[in-house]
Amino acid sequence: MDEKLVKEHERVDDLQCRGLRLIQNPEGFCFGIDAVLLSNFCEIRKNWRVIDLGTGTGIIPILLAGKTNAKEILGVEIQEEVAEMASRSVKLNKLEEKVKIINEDLNKIFDHVNQNSFDAVTSNPPYMNEGAGLLNPESMKAISRHEIKCTLEDVIRISSKLLKDRGHFYMVHRPHRLVDIIYLCRQYRLEPKKIRFVHPNKNKKPNILLIQCVKFGRPELKFMDPLYVYNEDGSYTDEIHKIYGREGE
Amino acid sequence: MDEKLVKEHERVDDLQCRGLRLIQNPEGFCFGIDAVLLSNFCEIRKNWRVIDLGTGTGIIPILLAGKTNAKEILGVEIQEEVAEMASRSVKLNKLEEKVKIINEDLNKIFDHVNQNSFDAVTSNPPYMNEGAGLLNPESMKAISRHEIKCTLEDVIRISSKLLKDRGHFYMVHRPHRLVDIIYLCRQYRLEPKKIRFVHPNKNKKPNILLIQCVKFGRPELKFMDPLYVYNEDGSYTDEIHKIYGREGE
Repeated sequence: MDEKLVKEHERVDDLQCRGLRLIQNPEGFCFGIDAVLLSNFCEIRKNWRVIDLGTGTGIIPILLAGKTNAKEILGVEIQEEVAEMASRSVKLNKLEEKVKIINEDLNKIFDHVNQNSFDAVTSNPPYMNEGAGLLNPESMKAISRHEIKCTLEDVIRISSKLLKDRGHFYMVHRPHRLVDIIYLCRQYRLEPKKIRFVHPNKNKKPNILLIQCVKFGRPELKFMDPLYVYNEDGSYTDEIHKIYGREGE
Repeated sequence: MDEKLVKEHERVDDLQCRGLRLIQNPEGFCFGIDAVLLSNFCEIRKNWRVIDLGTGTGIIPILLAGKTNAKEILGVEIQEEVAEMASRSVKLNKLEEKVKIINEDLNKIFDHVNQNSFDAVTSNPPYMNEGAGLLNPESMKAISRHEIKCTLEDVIRISSKLLKDRGHFYMVHRPHRLVDIIYLCRQYRLEPKKIRFVHPNKNKKPNILLIQCVKFGRPELKFMDPLYVYNEDGSYTDEIHKIYGREGE
């Protein structure tokens, strides 16, 4: 059965978590540390309905299905080929009951789901806000990385609409967009409640930002201790080992 | 002369910078690391006109007078007794030509100075936003620490009015107010450009925030490397030693 699900140019990666696996296309955008850190950062409660915006390979819904007791996890992906591959990863993990991939433009998501109907929204959106002027703006990698098909404001505006009151919004992004993120989240009533900066090591500034917002939440931001990826000798820190290797076992 | 400038209940501290000294009242609010870090964080150019909002003992104008080639530095302090003490510290350092203390409510500052007339605004404002309900809201310490006489929004709104186009706004504050700070700064057209988090040590989350904004600046935030105050053995880090002891020599 596995052979039928995986195409010739694709590879299957072991997610090191409860036997989960993921189909990826080495020519396209492959999941990175950001998605793994976001999945780990999310606090998803039992029976929650969750939706992941710009799901790509489906990495976040599949990890959350493995780690949490969510009732239903939807993943939305605009690129047909990528969404189809994510659906095959769902089948590969026999998660069809829990995880569904929707091939759609975020801006048309309300053709498929209702407003105010999710307990949590997750997103690892394109980070680059200079989509215009790209050599090949229709390439899969460009769409995954640059704000071509959706902007940060689209993601935040739509997330706010998708969430129930007090619903959680989780996003991973880059620190240089912090001002845009905070400004837009508050503007769309997603109050930032928790923030974690991820640093390459103890002597470097952060290069990844994890944020939790609560719809209509009371203003009060908590900082988490910084997360360092590497020790001074270049090896992974214990916390990263824990997130990657032993999580959920 | 010194004797005449210092009252009996006051003490004189050596600022460890070009022989500068500061009169303080041990019963009142004494300057802390925040003011020193802010003075060090500011980039003040030659002949700039600078104004410090909520100047307290005058620590920031006096340090900036010692460290920079600013043309004029004003300090605004609402508490008469504190402002008078700051004026004596200015005299003690023979800085009357360069530094002036104005005893006034921030909200009436435009009775004294013009809009759009400063190159830089600095502020180490009260951090606590729970001014209401304090046991003694008129005490000197309470006014220095709590948003009783001015709110964060007052500081940011007035700073924006005081600054010339492209003028710099420098503030030290607490990370848990980050969302309010960023939201209000952008709202009042002070675009956050540079941010530095100060951590007690390498394993702790930040407890001090330094921010530089530029009036009508282009959105682009730079993170500086984190500043750690203590080494693991409890001694000051080299960077703190440098900021405190050898700066400007």
